[in-house]
Amino acid sequence: MADLAARVRSIPDFPKPGILFRDITPLMADADALDAAVTALAEHARPLEVDYVIAAEARGFLLGPALARELGAGFVLARKPGKLPYDTVSAEYVLEYGVDTLELHTDAIAEGSRVLVHDDLLATGGTARAACELVEKVGGTVVGCSFLIELTPLAGREKLAGYDVHALLTYDEA
Amino acid sequence: MADLAARVRSIPDFPKPGILFRDITPLMADADALDAAVTALAEHARPLEVDYVIAAEARGFLLGPALARELGAGFVLARKPGKLPYDTVSAEYVLEYGVDTLELHTDAIAEGSRVLVHDDLLATGGTARAACELVEKVGGTVVGCSFLIELTPLAGREKLAGYDVHALLTYDEA
Repeated sequence: MADLAARVRSIPDFPKPGILFRDITPLMADADALDAAVTALAEHARPLEVDYVIAAEARGFLLGPALARELGAGFVLARKPGKLPYDTVSAEYVLEYGVDTLELHTDAIAEGSRVLVHDDLLATGGTARAACELVEKVGGTVVGCSFLIELTPLAGREKLAGYDVHALLTYDEA
Repeated sequence: MADLAARVRSIPDFPKPGILFRDITPLMADADALDAAVTALAEHARPLEVDYVIAAEARGFLLGPALARELGAGFVLARKPGKLPYDTVSAEYVLEYGVDTLELHTDAIAEGSRVLVHDDLLATGGTARAACELVEKVGGTVVGCSFLIELTPLAGREKLAGYDVHALLTYDEA
C-alpha cells in the first residue's frame, strides 16, 4: 500500500494558533495514495454490508462517494443549513471551533437501511455524532463510522461510544 | 446504463424564486446511478490522459475524486478563501447568485500537468472558468472540462470557449 501517512502534511497554527492541521491535499493529489485510501477504507467496511455511506460537506465529500462506489453503496449528503433543497431533518453539533448544524433530506435513505458514517477526520467527534443522529432520525441504522484520520487526544471515540469506529491513520498529537 | 436523468430531481424556486434547482442527491444515493455516472464521465475523459482532476467545493467534491480514481489520476481541491492551509493562488468568479473567490495550493500540481476541470453542474461557467485560471496560474494545462449536468440556456460553454467541454446530462430549461 502507498505510504498514506507520508502524504499527509502537518501545518502548525492553522486555522488558528495552537492547532496542528492535518492537510490531506497531498494524499488526494497522489493517484496511488487516493486509490489506496479508498481501497483500504472499503476493505474494512465491506463486512458491514453497507447500503449507504453518509458524509458531511465539504471534506467528507472527498472520499465518501468514492468509498460508497467501491462498496456498491449509495452516497448520502449531510449539508450545512439551507443547502439541501427538499424537506430536511437537522442535528446540532459542537465543532472544535464553534457550533454548527447539519441537515439531511427526509427521504435520503430507505427505512431500515444500513449506513456507514464517513469523514476525513475524527477530531472531537461532533460532526460524526450529528451524522449518526440524522441517520437515526430518518429510520436508518448506523453500522459503523469510518475515518481517514483519527486525532486520538481529542477523544472522538468517546462521543461515538456504541458505534463501530475505524480510522486508517491515527495521530497522538492534535 | 442507469437512467441518470430520472435520478435528478427538479425543485422550483430554490434557492430563490425563479431558479429551477437540479437536485442530484437521488442520483448520488442510488448505487447503480452513482457508479454509472462516474464510469460514463471517465469514459469520455480517458483519451485526455489526465494527470489530475480539479474541482471546487462543495458539490464538485462529490464526483471529482471518484472520477480521478477511475482515471488513475490525482484529485486537486479548489476551495473557498481561508480553507486551504498552505500557500495559495486565487481567482475570482461571478456566480449565478453573487461573487466569490476560489483558492488552490501553489504546489497542488506538478508543472506541465494535464488537468481535467470537473463540477457537478455547468451553469454560467464562472466556477469552472476560475478553476481553469487556477490551474494555469500554477503551470498546468487544462485538457478538458467535465460536468454531470449542463444548463444550456445559461451559456456556460461561452465562458469556457477554447476548452473541451463535456456534460453527461443537458437541460434546456434553467
